[in-house]
Amino acid sequence: MVVVLKQNAPLEKRNALISEIETMGVKVQVTEGTETSILGLVGDTSHLNEFRISSNEIVANILRVQEPFKKANKMFKPDDTIIEVAGRKIGEGYFSVITGPCSVESEEQIESIAKEVKDNGATFLRGGAYKPRTSPYAFQGLGLEGLEYLKHAKEKTGLPIVSEIMSVGMVEKFVEDVDIIQVGARNMQNFVLLKELGKTSKPILLKRGLAATIEEWLMSAEYILNEGNGNVIMCERGIRTFETYTRNTLDLSSILVVKKLSHLPVIVDPSHATGKAWMVEAMSKAAVVAGADGVLIEVHNNPALALCDGQQSITPEQFSKLMGKIRTLVELEGKKLEG
Amino acid sequence: MVVVLKQNAPLEKRNALISEIETMGVKVQVTEGTETSILGLVGDTSHLNEFRISSNEIVANILRVQEPFKKANKMFKPDDTIIEVAGRKIGEGYFSVITGPCSVESEEQIESIAKEVKDNGATFLRGGAYKPRTSPYAFQGLGLEGLEYLKHAKEKTGLPIVSEIMSVGMVEKFVEDVDIIQVGARNMQNFVLLKELGKTSKPILLKRGLAATIEEWLMSAEYILNEGNGNVIMCERGIRTFETYTRNTLDLSSILVVKKLSHLPVIVDPSHATGKAWMVEAMSKAAVVAGADGVLIEVHNNPALALCDGQQSITPEQFSKLMGKIRTLVELEGKKLEG
Amino acid sequence: MVVVLKQNAPLEKRNALISEIETMGVKVQVTEGTETSILGLVGDTSHLNEFRISSNEIVANILRVQEPFKKANKMFKPDDTIIEVAGRKIGEGYFSVITGPCSVESEEQIESIAKEVKDNGATFLRGGAYKPRTSPYAFQGLGLEGLEYLKHAKEKTGLPIVSEIMSVGMVEKFVEDVDIIQVGARNMQNFVLLKELGKTSKPILLKRGLAATIEEWLMSAEYILNEGNGNVIMCERGIRTFETYTRNTLDLSSILVVKKLSHLPVIVDPSHATGKAWMVEAMSKAAVVAGADGVLIEVHNNPALALCDGQQSITPEQFSKLMGKIRTLVELEGKKLEG
Amino acid sequence: MVVVLKQNAPLEKRNALISEIETMGVKVQVTEGTETSILGLVGDTSHLNEFRISSNEIVANILRVQEPFKKANKMFKPDDTIIEVAGRKIGEGYFSVITGPCSVESEEQIESIAKEVKDNGATFLRGGAYKPRTSPYAFQGLGLEGLEYLKHAKEKTGLPIVSEIMSVGMVEKFVEDVDIIQVGARNMQNFVLLKELGKTSKPILLKRGLAATIEEWLMSAEYILNEGNGNVIMCERGIRTFETYTRNTLDLSSILVVKKLSHLPVIVDPSHATGKAWMVEAMSKAAVVAGADGVLIEVHNNPALALCDGQQSITPEQFSKLMGKIRTLVELEGKKLEG
Repeated sequence: MVVVLKQNAPLEKRNALISEIETMGVKVQVTEGTETSILGLVGDTSHLNEFRISSNEIVANILRVQEPFKKANKMFKPDDTIIEVAGRKIGEGYFSVITGPCSVESEEQIESIAKEVKDNGATFLRGGAYKPRTSPYAFQGLGLEGLEYLKHAKEKTGLPIVSEIMSVGMVEKFVEDVDIIQVGARNMQNFVLLKELGKTSKPILLKRGLAATIEEWLMSAEYILNEGNGNVIMCERGIRTFETYTRNTLDLSSILVVKKLSHLPVIVDPSHATGKAWMVEAMSKAAVVAGADGVLIEVHNNPALALCDGQQSITPEQFSKLMGKIRTLVELEGKKLEG
Repeated sequence: MVVVLKQNAPLEKRNALISEIETMGVKVQVTEGTETSILGLVGDTSHLNEFRISSNEIVANILRVQEPFKKANKMFKPDDTIIEVAGRKIGEGYFSVITGPCSVESEEQIESIAKEVKDNGATFLRGGAYKPRTSPYAFQGLGLEGLEYLKHAKEKTGLPIVSEIMSVGMVEKFVEDVDIIQVGARNMQNFVLLKELGKTSKPILLKRGLAATIEEWLMSAEYILNEGNGNVIMCERGIRTFETYTRNTLDLSSILVVKKLSHLPVIVDPSHATGKAWMVEAMSKAAVVAGADGVLIEVHNNPALALCDGQQSITPEQFSKLMGKIRTLVELEGKKLEG
Repeated sequence: MVVVLKQNAPLEKRNALISEIETMGVKVQVTEGTETSILGLVGDTSHLNEFRISSNEIVANILRVQEPFKKANKMFKPDDTIIEVAGRKIGEGYFSVITGPCSVESEEQIESIAKEVKDNGATFLRGGAYKPRTSPYAFQGLGLEGLEYLKHAKEKTGLPIVSEIMSVGMVEKFVEDVDIIQVGARNMQNFVLLKELGKTSKPILLKRGLAATIEEWLMSAEYILNEGNGNVIMCERGIRTFETYTRNTLDLSSILVVKKLSHLPVIVDPSHATGKAWMVEAMSKAAVVAGADGVLIEVHNNPALALCDGQQSITPEQFSKLMGKIRTLVELEGKKLEG
Repeated sequence: MVVVLKQNAPLEKRNALISEIETMGVKVQVTEGTETSILGLVGDTSHLNEFRISSNEIVANILRVQEPFKKANKMFKPDDTIIEVAGRKIGEGYFSVITGPCSVESEEQIESIAKEVKDNGATFLRGGAYKPRTSPYAFQGLGLEGLEYLKHAKEKTGLPIVSEIMSVGMVEKFVEDVDIIQVGARNMQNFVLLKELGKTSKPILLKRGLAATIEEWLMSAEYILNEGNGNVIMCERGIRTFETYTRNTLDLSSILVVKKLSHLPVIVDPSHATGKAWMVEAMSKAAVVAGADGVLIEVHNNPALALCDGQQSITPEQFSKLMGKIRTLVELEGKKLEG
């Protein structure tokens, strides 16, 4: 940590500040500038009360030297995390395709979609049982019934399942029923939920919040890792910007940043990012060559009748065609398509 | 709802679409344009499957004519909502000052601050017992102990208390212990929590999410109202933008918008919006004359030693001075300062 | 255009409004709703005074049915625009690589880079002679001297050149000296400049503004097209968001949107979008498979000594390696790499 | 400037780096940390090639200690700049009301508005002769004719005039004809124009760009100041965010920031910021108490027929009422309303 002093800070006040900081357990080294001087703090500064220092009258500014996340930090664990779920590997060198409808609507629907995507090489089946909707008047999901249908679909196809959790009260049930628990963008900073999920060993798919910086997103992963669960999969799903033509703005560069700063896998959700079915193919391809470890794609047998997010769902036929293109690019990247 | 057709849509396809829409229970009136034709849908369109229509091959676009919120809508309840809490009124014509430390740190701390702000005319005492923090390594609040200290401070000063809830499991406890339950920005779309709070009759202070449009914020209020709890207080606390000098960008125009579109009270939190104690006075004054029904201000007896958000907390002395200015402006606005 | 009326608008006021609108030269068709009625305006509404209507006391809202751009609109010119520059084609089916240093620094520098990128298959040479810099104290470019060096580099390598114009006074000189004139992000709405460029027939590379919606960006193209110059190449270079890790946020979905709404070519500038040399390869590859008609990449022989944007420039060696990957993907997309 | 080194940087590489930096004319002081070491650079670092240092393989990060603007910096000129225009003072302690129509439409229009606002105490008359419009099909202003009408209105009322310049070619004419030259948001980084204006001594009203950080906005002021013209008035006019209900998001906290970092006056334009006439009163009042040195308000005699921005213009009657409220608040702030 670096403390920048104001111009002409009186020597005695400076000495008092240095003494105060050193009583907090770190050492201080002074660099005398022509206009301003700076103090370099040496030692473990993670528990320092930064504001106590910055509120000192002679302090102009405080500059942080290190990232605030530890367990998610590549510096402290250089090897990429590879998560194994029901025999499928998620992480560097592998590629996963997680797919299925926005929400489970009936037993027939989810089983028919599951069969089609399985035949086309999907790695995981996704489907929402509980749906976070902006409006209380929109379809809220089938709940427990939806989870049951998902399990049947898994039994029939062998595809492991991914579903979104909405509150702490559901943790036990989800740990039992699903293979990967999804935390939605709107819950990315539901810290009570993150801590509870951190106490399990279930893989967690953590979506990026609508307005979350990459650092905040990694800090939310840190909440899970810090409780002992290292199985976190990051999921870029677009951020909110001033552009309204697309539902969100897909930030593919975040794949690179997360992989540089941390050891966690990153997948991309082009369906929510764009909100438009006709954009999913191009953005999925872009995600593969940009280095993603997988994609999450909404598929619906009849998007026009979907109870949720129909406008961004592709049909099984479109999915089949897309899988061909994904396969080619994944091979070109030297990765293994899991499934 | 207005359906815009593509150019040169064949007549037979148009007739088929009209029939399909009318089986959904609304009437259709056609406006023939020179380049495009439009369909006006007459009747209750709130339960229509919008996407089913928009995915028809001859449809270019769908335009919504009405706001999606009903119970929060001023059109359906023109009278302003005035919420009474322990004899204090919140809403049009009244002005509330909710104040206290970011987090309760000790019994002495909260009682001493409570006494000081009470003496200076505060309307409510706020204090965090549970704290949502970006980092798992930051102080997370005293929890139940903090709630106890708040209650003692209430007993000693008579100030009703406001505190933030973090999950569904705490609802019963909070209903019992606090006078106004705060829902933080990060939980604005925690729909499970909103629904549970909607089943109580406790006043809810609903902060705007970091990237929430005003419409989404009102839709979150609608979740609470729709369950039967009409006591919702909206709280503008700044939105996330590209500007990084301030913690967030305070959007004072949202006061006007919420008051135009809905009947709910709106207060402003200049402390979180700016993240800087020295900006709180000016932004509080601006909130008063812009029409806010109150302000939420962080006060700490020793900001430099605060365990949370010290940089944005003002001292009791600064609060005292600020109250003088607020009092003058509230009177000028013809409102009554509650306390 | 659709005019939504307020609830219970009196019949006589409605009739008066209809008469008023019809005197503006369009026809009005009424759709009676249960709660609100709407007026459909039939005819050429492009010159209507929209606000004169919306300020009528019984009008609740006005909804636009069509895009505001005409000459850039794919609806009015369905065939993709292919621009030919010195024998190279820019547009659907072709792929261009525009490359070179941020700024021309010396004759040796630009000639040496030109030779290297030519050998590696670049389509165009870029180099800044005039540089728009945030700070007046930063290197502002060599000016006319820089243009001369660019021309020499063109003579020696045969590569057509691209350079950024900064004001109307330079139009004549640029038309004479360069093959494609670049308009920078900060000048995207310098309408005086756009109009002057529209009076030439020189190809214009129009960068997207930092906070420009895709519609605004296309409206700026419309300024050029409307003056008679149809040779506009759109260039996505990232938009400003709350994320600060990257210099901007690259919006690859804008490629798809521009290509759907208009007939103009779109290229991508991953160097400015990310601001980091190590991200350029992955984002260039993503641009190719997302459907871009080209990329604009900063290459510098010694990035560490570059007078401008060194941190986002790749070396000729890195460029050579990248060209191999671009070549593979361009072929896979069934396009022809020009050069 | 502070250079943060990577962990375990070899001593010989560190020494080489230090030598390299010292040849650039600054001194280096080393602070040895437990995990990372930092170099403090002492001396004038404004001309250092920052990237040359950051691209060294052992450098992790560079932190800037000082603001990049000098002449606009309060640190180097602690006294507030007060600009005198035709006997009116703009700056700390004074309050200006700049008002008039978005665009000059006719001689009668501008003279009638000028008379009305003069009678109600306006300080300056504004009116657009040249209009930057998103669409080439929108009214582009009367040009020279408009300037003439403005001058006539000035002769008749004595009000000094403010009008927007759009390119370098107009500088001479504007210096002659108007009292304050406005640079619009879209030209905030038209550096060629800024430099030319810097060579005059005419007061410049510099609007904040749609996506400009406060620092970038001050850097644009620095372009003008650096050429010798110290008469710059900053104008906050809202920034672009994800919220679409208002035209822009008014950032009133920027008043405080500009006044803390620089010595320049700051005024606020609530008309463009909100885009809605009914919001202008509340936001103007908020600007006064937040510390602005003035407001810029659009007034039109018949907003419904305005050729430009009618929806955000208030009528002379509304202006008269607003002036009463502004007067009260300006007095309360202990400032002098100029006029």
